[in-house]
Parts: sequence; structure tokens; C-alpha cells
Amino acid sequence: MELALRGRIAIYFDNNDKLHFVKDPLILIEENKIIDIGMYSKLKKEIAGHDIVGDKYQLLIPGLINCHTHLAMTLFRGLADDLPLDIWLKEHIWPLEENLNAKDVYRGCKLGVIESILAGVTTANSMYWYPSSEAEAMEEIGFRGLIAAPVITGITKLEDAIEIVNKHHNTAEEKIRVTLSLHSPYTVTMTDFERSYNYLVNFNKSCNEKSKLLLHTHLAESKNEMRESKQLNSKYGIEFPDVKTPTELLNNIGILDDNLIAAHCIHLNENDINLIGSKNVRVSLNPLSNAKLGNYMPPIPEMISKVRNVGIGTDGPASNNTLDLFDTVRFLALYYKGYLHEPTVIKAKEVFKLATIGGSRALNWEGIGTLEAESLADITTINLKQPHLTPKINDENILNHFAYSMKGKDVENVIINGKLIMEEGKISNLDIEKEIELVEEITHRLLQ
Amino acid sequence: MELALRGRIAIYFDNNDKLHFVKDPLILIEENKIIDIGMYSKLKKEIAGHDIVGDKYQLLIPGLINCHTHLAMTLFRGLADDLPLDIWLKEHIWPLEENLNAKDVYRGCKLGVIESILAGVTTANSMYWYPSSEAEAMEEIGFRGLIAAPVITGITKLEDAIEIVNKHHNTAEEKIRVTLSLHSPYTVTMTDFERSYNYLVNFNKSCNEKSKLLLHTHLAESKNEMRESKQLNSKYGIEFPDVKTPTELLNNIGILDDNLIAAHCIHLNENDINLIGSKNVRVSLNPLSNAKLGNYMPPIPEMISKVRNVGIGTDGPASNNTLDLFDTVRFLALYYKGYLHEPTVIKAKEVFKLATIGGSRALNWEGIGTLEAESLADITTINLKQPHLTPKINDENILNHFAYSMKGKDVENVIINGKLIMEEGKISNLDIEKEIELVEEITHRLLQ
Repeated sequence: MELALRGRIAIYFDNNDKLHFVKDPLILIEENKIIDIGMYSKLKKEIAGHDIVGDKYQLLIPGLINCHTHLAMTLFRGLADDLPLDIWLKEHIWPLEENLNAKDVYRGCKLGVIESILAGVTTANSMYWYPSSEAEAMEEIGFRGLIAAPVITGITKLEDAIEIVNKHHNTAEEKIRVTLSLHSPYTVTMTDFERSYNYLVNFNKSCNEKSKLLLHTHLAESKNEMRESKQLNSKYGIEFPDVKTPTELLNNIGILDDNLIAAHCIHLNENDINLIGSKNVRVSLNPLSNAKLGNYMPPIPEMISKVRNVGIGTDGPASNNTLDLFDTVRFLALYYKGYLHEPTVIKAKEVFKLATIGGSRALNWEGIGTLEAESLADITTINLKQPHLTPKINDENILNHFAYSMKGKDVENVIINGKLIMEEGKISNLDIEKEIELVEEITHRLLQ
Repeated sequence: MELALRGRIAIYFDNNDKLHFVKDPLILIEENKIIDIGMYSKLKKEIAGHDIVGDKYQLLIPGLINCHTHLAMTLFRGLADDLPLDIWLKEHIWPLEENLNAKDVYRGCKLGVIESILAGVTTANSMYWYPSSEAEAMEEIGFRGLIAAPVITGITKLEDAIEIVNKHHNTAEEKIRVTLSLHSPYTVTMTDFERSYNYLVNFNKSCNEKSKLLLHTHLAESKNEMRESKQLNSKYGIEFPDVKTPTELLNNIGILDDNLIAAHCIHLNENDINLIGSKNVRVSLNPLSNAKLGNYMPPIPEMISKVRNVGIGTDGPASNNTLDLFDTVRFLALYYKGYLHEPTVIKAKEVFKLATIGGSRALNWEGIGTLEAESLADITTINLKQPHLTPKINDENILNHFAYSMKGKDVENVIINGKLIMEEGKISNLDIEKEIELVEEITHRLLQ
């Protein structure tokens, strides 16, 4: 039997940025795709042979897309909060990571995937050690994700990263992709950036769109990034005295284009924003994590007006502290209104766009982030029959609830690639309590 | 049978600002009070005759305290978001309020009380029309709350407010109190403020502490408040050419003291903050609402270092958009870190304090906001066995989860005044779906 979904209303952007509201909707799925969406009264004749999921209280939206995270860092959630960034990283996170093994990452990532699905996230772009373990966890649960083939100067080589690409890219019924993950301009030399980019461009030449690789990096996250980048490169004999920002730096070596997904993008000047926009760089904004780490805040109102390929991410659960994209949605919708004293900036429909079709563009993953016919069947349903989502008067009112009232825990059903992964709040064949215990055992061991 | 509560850990501040962590705790309740709290192994001999609530996965905290809201505004949630403040208020909220009746407020408030309890809030200070309707809803469900006896110049008189005080203050087993609610310095003349204050001081002379009245007002919420206040007072022949801020204004007429609970407190200069602190004014900070309405942000880091009687509030659900105090907790913990680029500002234990014992002080309600022996038995329990609250390694780690990961929906049990109001997520004798429908019918009618 194929799946069909019913609800009170479906909301989605199409690829031309048109916002659709479908009342009393029916979504018909075949294999891994949405084959039709429309009013139940019009489509019900096609319903034979479909199992119906949902009821008249569900909001149907595209599965949410987390454009930048480190899934396995569930292991370190809440261990060292309210600390300066360098102490947090150097005295707490890095020493813990030194003793991690592949099995630990599998467990941590699995819990991260579970947490994501419980909150209606169907795709995540995760950058972490032991990517094969992350792939294993994602595939086991049926998640859609990007894992990282890491290149860090002096630590991991391009050749090893290529092995990861060859092993995992476009596997698991094409639900898993690999990004060539060059951690940042302050941990990877420009030589390594150039070599990796050249490999990637060659790889992509022979590919159709959905087989293309992305280069994934942290860009302009910290204030000291430019200075640290100059120091690192200098050690390897590379100097760039005239370059003033990390964005300019990547542009100068010719790698600022739509092959790149850049996370954070905080310390940008106007020229940097224009470069990123005009060169169609893909961007993941992670404002909640930036706030918590005191990393300055990205120029998001300017970014969303000038950059098309922009989505949002949670960042890792050690610095957020959840994988619930609704938390980031709401924080983003609120922070800039408070900061700019401007209640009309970053409206509900803009955050909805960032969390859905924007994510599809940021990750260059066609067919997700929308509910259009022919798109991939990644769908999240939310139970609207709850006090904090009352009243439901009209389309805009429900969209406002998405931005300002909903939480991951309101999610009831999750479909990924046409499969019902979560039904009425339960992920089948999964002992969540056991997974929690296993993660806590690992964290205890790492802290010893 | 009396109640006893078990859990994994209990966390609370005592009245001397000492933070307590009790592992494997047992809380013994008799009638409406906590008679003892300690480790289970030590207290278990006293457990006979008690019904046990909770399990080894619960975090036990004081019931959360919402220091400023407008409960019945659930009726207007999400109807007009992302708009400038004056358009929101004058073109949307006020016209809807014109057609409200007492029954509507009862329904709206009842849903607000339900939403609050579902999110672990056990006390709320609500300012709204038809206060008898709010009292009725609170009493019916067993909530602890303050309702408003309104004084607005030209609209409602002190004499009518006094009737409300006489009818409702310290009723419902002392769970309901009344505040003399003088809406703001721009809607109430200084003459009316003085008259009301004089009545209140006389009233309080003859009272013990728990029978005292508070004067409740919005203070320094909008940028135009001083100008509008001068205009209003001028109409009634009152001039104060030398006064520069609303806080100074209230101080000049001698009413800035611990009889006052002031909500918002955004537009304060250093002198204002010192005045509020030194005169022990009670304050409700509502940063999430302030951000959403673009009302500038209050100087919270300075306030919490200089003002003792300070708690937090959600403000009304038309401008937040929820009554979930965890939303405000997290936004507060994050906003100032982002704004000040300082990850160590407003730590987890500070927001926990604001949401608990701070609320008790802000509302001058002794015995709530703590779990000390002899305090009132208002207790919230949270299920820690969830992916987004993993791992649980030590005391601080769990407190970090309170600030950065928990949500209202994680709450499992709620006790108010010694009574189990919510058990395992269910409020007994209540058809929530019916309440939702009734509220939606009212909103539809008001919009016609």
C-alpha cells in the first residue's frame, strides 16, 4: 500500500517562491515521491490503494531541513554551558573528543537523528568525526542526511576524504550524501582548500545535479578567524597580506561559488554579503548557537534579502542545546525584532521559507523542502488541536503559529522518502530509553 | 491520603538565594504545604499515609511563576503578528476587545490557565478586563493567580476597582489575590495613581503580609510613554515639566516602593535602575514580548544585579505567543549573550532563579517559588528521560538543560497548593478539545 496524508491545511513554498495554502488537503504518495497534492474533495477519487495517515487537525508541511549541525554531539549536551568560547572548546569539548571512538559516534548520532525526527526534521547536514558511523545511524533509522568527509590540515587528508565520498555518497536509496568538509579557513590551509576544490569540480563535471558534491565549511564564525588563518597559512609559506576577510580569502583562491555551503557567515562586511549573494554561495545561518556562544550575530536581515541559497541550522547540540529547528526558527524571528526595534523584520513566512525550501537550496538537494507534486515525500505533520496553537482562524494565523508558538514536540507524523518513519509520535522498532542509556554510558566514560 | 513526590533530582533556591540540589529526593506534602524535603533514603520512614507521585526520571522544581500576563488574550493569539505596535494595538487588538463579554474572558482565561499548567506554570499575575471571569476560571481549575482590579482614567474608576478587591482578594483558599491595576502612566493620570496608592497604603496597614495588595502597572514599556503621559496629564491640568522618565514620575509622586509591581521596565536610565533597586520596587521582565513587538529591550543584566524583587513574565499570548515560561527563560538566557557577545552573561542558574524564587519576590507571595520545608506545595515535575534532555551527568548539567533544552511540553506533573492538578500530562476532569473549540467560536464571532 502507498501512503496518503490528510490534514486541516498544508502550507509550503514552491520552487518559484510562491507560498501555497491548501485547505482540507490530500497528499498522495507513490514510492518516494509526492504524486499529487490538492483539496481532498478534488483528489479523493485517486485515494484507492493508499493507507491514510493524519486527521482533520494536522498541519502538513515539508519536512524541516537542518542545514548545519554536528549530530553526534548529543554526547556533550549541556556539559559546559555559560563559558567563554575558547574555554568551552579547548578545555571541555576537544579533550572529550580525543577519546571518542566510532561506536560512540554511531550512538551519539543515532540519538541525534531520533531527536531530529521527533521534532519534524527530515534532513540534516552533519559535520563530524567517524562519518561512516553517522551514515550507519542515519541509514538504520531512514533519515536523509549529509555526512562529512573531513579535511583538516595536519590531521585528515583529502585522499582519506575521497574514500569516504566513494563509500557513502548517494547511498541508502540516495538518502545519504557526502560533503567534502574543510573545517574552516583557520584550520585548513588555502593549498588544501584549492586541492579539495579542484577534486570536487572534476568530480561534479561528470555528475547529474543530484550526484554533485558540496564543499562544506565554517565561514567567518569567530572574530579571530582572519588572524588565525593568516598564522596557519604562514606556517605553510602561504601569505595573503592584502586580504581582509575570510570571505575575500576564499574568493581570492577562486572557490566562492555554488559548490560551497558556508555555515555561520557572521563576520561579513557589505562586500562579503554581495560576494556571497552574487556567486550563489550556499549558506546555513545558525543564530541560536551564535548567540549562546557569544559569537556575535550574523547580518541576517541583509543576508536573506541578498542571498537566494540560504537555509538555517541548529549547529551541534553542545552549543544550542537542541536539534529542534523550531527553537532556531523562533529565536531568529524574535532576535532581530528586538535588536533592531522593528516588529516587521523577518516575518513568519520568511522563517518558514528558511526552514523548508531555503534548506533545499542551501544543501542543493532538489525535491525536498516543498510539497509540490513530483517532489520527494519528506513530510511533517503537526497536531493543531492544542491550547498553545489556538485559535486557528485563517491561513496567516496558522503560519504565525509556526513561527511563534510551535515546538518540535507538537510534531505527530514524519514521512521521509515516502516512508512513515514516525506515526503519532512514535518511531517504530526503536527503544528510545535504551538509546538514551547507551549515550549516557558513553558520556560518563569520556568524562572519567 | 496526602501526597509525596519522588524524582531523580530536586532543584530549588531557598529564600537566602542558596541553590539546592537534592539527589533521589522525596518531598512530603501535608494539606497545602511541603512539610519536608530530603533524600529518599533519609525520609522514607515518614512516607506512610502518602500517595507517591513521580518516578526516578523526574526533575522536581518549584512551580514556575509568570509575573505579568493577560491570560484571556489566548483569544487573539497569532491574529496579527509582524506588525508595527500601534497598528497591532489600535487596528487589531482594541477593536476586538470592544466586543468582548464576561463569558468570553472566562473562556479565554480558562484556556490560558490550562496552557500555563500544561507548561508547568502554577502562578500567574494576569491583568485583564472582567477580572471576576478570570477569577472564576482560575478557581475552577485550582490555579494560583492574581487578577486585576483595573483603574484607567476616563474608563474605570477606583471605586469599582475596590469592589473587585473586596470580592476576590484572598479568596479560593487564598489562591487568588487582586492587584490594583493602574494600566500605565500614559493611560492613568497622576491624580488617579495617587488616590489609588493612598487607598492601597491604608488597606495594607491593617493587613498581615499575605493579605497585602500590590499596585500593578506597565512601566516604561514604550518609547513614547513620557510624551503621552505628559499629554494625558496636561488634559487634567497636571504638569511636570522637569520630569524626564516614567520612573522618575512615579517616584516624584511618592509611589515608587515595594507596593508596586512594574511590568516591562524597558526605557530606564541608570538613575531609574538605581531608584527601582533601592526602593525595592517589584519588577516583571518580559523580554520575549518586548522583542516581538520591537519595543526595545530592557537592561536586564543591570536589572538583575541591582534589583532583588525581580521575576519574569510571558506577557499576553497575543504578543509572545505562548504562556510557556520556558520560552521566555530560553530567550532571556540567549538574547543578551548574542547582543553583548558575552557567553557568560545571564547563566542558567540566574534564569532558573528568575522563574522561581524571583517570581515569589516580584509578586510578594511568600512560600511559592521554592521547595523549602514549610513552603506552599506548588511543584512541577519534568520527565528527564528524553533525547533532548540527554545526557544527565551532574547537577549543573541538569540545570543547563532547564535553561537551554526544556520546554513546557516536558512537564509531567503539576501540584498547586498541595493538590495534584496535572498527572502524567493530563489535567483531570477537563475536556481540552472542547475548551479549544469554545475559544475558537468566540474568536470567530469577534472577527465578524
